[in-house]
This record gives sequence, C-alpha cells and structure tokens, in this order.
Amino acid sequence: MQRYFLNTAYGTTTPQSYEVSGEPFHHMVHVMRMEVGTQVYLVFSDGVSVEARIGQINSDSVVLELGNREQVHRELPINVTIASGFPKGDKLEWIVQKGTELGANQFLAFPAKTSIVKWDQKKRQKKQERLQKIAQEAAEQSHRQSCPRVVLLENQSQLLTQMQTADQVLIAYEESAKKGEHAQLVETFKKMRPGQQLLVIFGPEGGFLPEEIAQFLSAGALCCGLGPRILRTETAPLYVLGAASYHYELCQAEPTSVD
Amino acid sequence: MQRYFLNTAYGTTTPQSYEVSGEPFHHMVHVMRMEVGTQVYLVFSDGVSVEARIGQINSDSVVLELGNREQVHRELPINVTIASGFPKGDKLEWIVQKGTELGANQFLAFPAKTSIVKWDQKKRQKKQERLQKIAQEAAEQSHRQSCPRVVLLENQSQLLTQMQTADQVLIAYEESAKKGEHAQLVETFKKMRPGQQLLVIFGPEGGFLPEEIAQFLSAGALCCGLGPRILRTETAPLYVLGAASYHYELCQAEPTSVD
Repeated sequence: MQRYFLNTAYGTTTPQSYEVSGEPFHHMVHVMRMEVGTQVYLVFSDGVSVEARIGQINSDSVVLELGNREQVHRELPINVTIASGFPKGDKLEWIVQKGTELGANQFLAFPAKTSIVKWDQKKRQKKQERLQKIAQEAAEQSHRQSCPRVVLLENQSQLLTQMQTADQVLIAYEESAKKGEHAQLVETFKKMRPGQQLLVIFGPEGGFLPEEIAQFLSAGALCCGLGPRILRTETAPLYVLGAASYHYELCQAEPTSVD
Repeated sequence: MQRYFLNTAYGTTTPQSYEVSGEPFHHMVHVMRMEVGTQVYLVFSDGVSVEARIGQINSDSVVLELGNREQVHRELPINVTIASGFPKGDKLEWIVQKGTELGANQFLAFPAKTSIVKWDQKKRQKKQERLQKIAQEAAEQSHRQSCPRVVLLENQSQLLTQMQTADQVLIAYEESAKKGEHAQLVETFKKMRPGQQLLVIFGPEGGFLPEEIAQFLSAGALCCGLGPRILRTETAPLYVLGAASYHYELCQAEPTSVD
C-alpha cells in the first residue's frame, strides 16, 4: 500500500479527513492514477501513520477519509545518525537509500581531510535536496514511519557541534577492525536507552588522518571495529544499521538469544 | 597490503618460496609496478594466507619468499550462501561485491517466477565470469581469506538440489517481516555449528509466488523476517550478513552482550 509523508502533524484531535495537494496529490492522481476508494497510508510529521481512503478527487487536491492508525511499529528504538566523510561518485546516494531502508534516523555528510570531492555551498544545497528526495522515496518504499533528515555540512567543526547533541558517538575505524576490536559496538548498543541518539562517523575512501581521529576522540567519540573484514566506505554504515536492527528488533524480543 | 588469491593449495609442506605467473604476475609488475622487496599477502586455495616478499622479478613470473601465516582470522565461522532470484539491472553485481565484503561464502542466483530478466546459457556463463571477478576483487580489497564462489543456476530445481547440501535453509520473506516474525534468524544462528552451511533465499523485486514459497518449505526451508521495514532485494542479503557478523564475531566474543 502506497505511503505518503506529510509536513503537518496528526496531533491529538484525531481528524476524520485530510486534504492533500501539491506533490502527493500529483503522485496519487497523475502518477499512480488512483481513484476514489483507493487505500493509502498517510504518515504525519509527528510519526503517526494512518490508513486512509480516497473519498474525493478535485482538480488540484484529494480528500482522504482517515482510518485506523498503523499497528506495527517500524522504527528502530534508538535514533541512529550516519555521518559520512564526502565519498566519491554516487556513493552518498546509495548510503542514503539503503541506510533509509535499514532504519537510519539522520544522515550527515562532511568534508574529511582525505575527501577528494570539493562541493561549494550551491552544489551542497543541490545535492542535499536530491538526497532528501532519495531518502523520502526509500522511506515510503520500506514502510518507514518517519523520513530521515539529510544534511551536508560545510566543515568538520559543524560535525563536532552535531556530536554534542548525540548521546553516544562512535568512529568506524579501520585500524580498530585490523586490531580485532569487537566489543565496543555491542557495549554501546547495550548502554543506550529508547529514543537516544547514536552518531556513527565513517571515513571516505582514504580513511581518516590520525589528527582527525584524535579530534573526534577528544570530543568524546569512541573507536569501534565492525568485524575482521575491511568494509568500504559505503558498506560500513549498512553493517551498523543491520547490527542495530538485529540487536534491538530481532534479539531483544528474545532476551536470551545470543547467550 | 595487496593480496592475491591463488589456485594452488599451501598444503602441509610449508614451502619457502612461490612463483606466480599469469594474472597475478601481470597485476604485481604491470599494474602495481611492484619491485623486489615489496610485501604482499598470498592466499592459497586451502584458505591459508601468508605474508610474502617479492624476491625476484622475471620476464613472465615473480618469485616470492614466503613468510609468516596471517594471524587474524577473517572468515565467518559459518558458511553463508546467498541465493538471489535474478534481479534487474546491475543489482547482482553489487550484491556480490558488498556481500563478499560482508563475508558471504557463496552466491547462487536463479530464475524466480517473477524475475523479469531471461538469461540464456551463454549470457549466464558470461555474467557468472564477470561476477566471479567482482567477488575476487572485493575479497582482495576486504582482506578475505577465501574467495566466494558465484554460480548462476539454470532453473529452480537446481536450487532445490543445492538446498539439500545446506545444514539450514531460510527464506527472507516479506510477509514474515510484515507479520512481525523476529525469532527465526536468531534461533538459526544459535543452532548452527562452526563450518556448517546456511543458505538464505531472497526473491527478486516482485517477490515470491505462494507456490514458490510452498516448494521451498516442503524442501525444508523456514521463513524468517528481517525486521519491521521492507528491504529491497539487493539490501536484504546485506542485512543477513551484517547480522551474522554481529552475532558470531562481535557478540560471541562477549557471550552476555545481548542479555
């Protein structure tokens, strides 16, 4: 069943109907050629997801009758932010697409010292809008109940500022993997409480310079390994998100499962 | 440090030197422009990975002095086979590339009932060779100690035959995810012993038809969910591999970590 993310909140008044115009209207009527009676999900900005039936189609809007709230909870219990040093090519596009399917709450990207691409303010703005659209399409397709936010940062000090708002910060560090570090990601997952934010930092293809690692560490980040194999910059974030889902959504429901 | 997969076994005789020609010779001398003294890893067909130093460069071969065995173990304790219904476009290419980084032992692909692509024997052969090359490059880059095998099957009965050789078979089934099934993957990981084979079946974009699921079930497969979000055909295998690494390589080292 098609789902649409809305900019307005569902609130506490349990509305009986809702009128959409603009982009979702266009997609329902002109792209999907939906007719009166078609069922969709409307996802409101406060994360409420509601079954809705098209009741009336106007020339520039659609009126939907709102039904029951979606019962299944589809979001990770913690908010995972993926922070990637600007990678080459279209890797950021698919980190955002796959990471959204896997439950990421937010994507940050920043110019790391070894990042090859240089994006000025205009280019960053354009790319951010494109990535936000990719995130929304992936969120709709994967039945998310919230759409991840995508922000392209201008410099690393903006990343350090973002780190201050996170409850836990990890660095996916190749050297930790090489040294066989294995406990940190598990320990961090165990420490975290529902609704808290985990920010995980990933380097670009060239990795991080020692001074970058030192700066992150002094800002409170911890290094973690992601298993004994060396993962590419676009693969490591998917490992962390898959592990988070396995830990919280598959194992937690079975408390003794990894004894 | 560059690594090269060889077709010969290291064996029990602990050889002091090894001469390479053909493709690895070409890559060392003409692509990487390596000189005498350069250190590399040689990975033999029996999974032994050895530090080696270029001792002599000839016109069509390189003689390497063999050193210590690689200490870190980089392979998953169970053998995970990813079996994908033929997907569209280049999705199989990157299932193989990312899945190799994440530790898959084997990739099978087969024509599912909703698969749109139709590949004749010649096309399958060509594609299989290309995918095998992608797997080898990814295995070298991710520091694997064995290179996954890629096999494109002609029909589903060949898949059923392959299922007989596996110790456990799972179907990543969208309906299971929608119903909130969460325990099966964890239970299966817990059941498995080192060296056993887990075969996981993934549908193409259109998913599986009920009769396909019925056929897999009657052949002993079990359905499993991969969390509450709907994953694309190219994303689901990465979830399973990331979860396997988290379970066996990160958590097992910490037996009480997911209590």
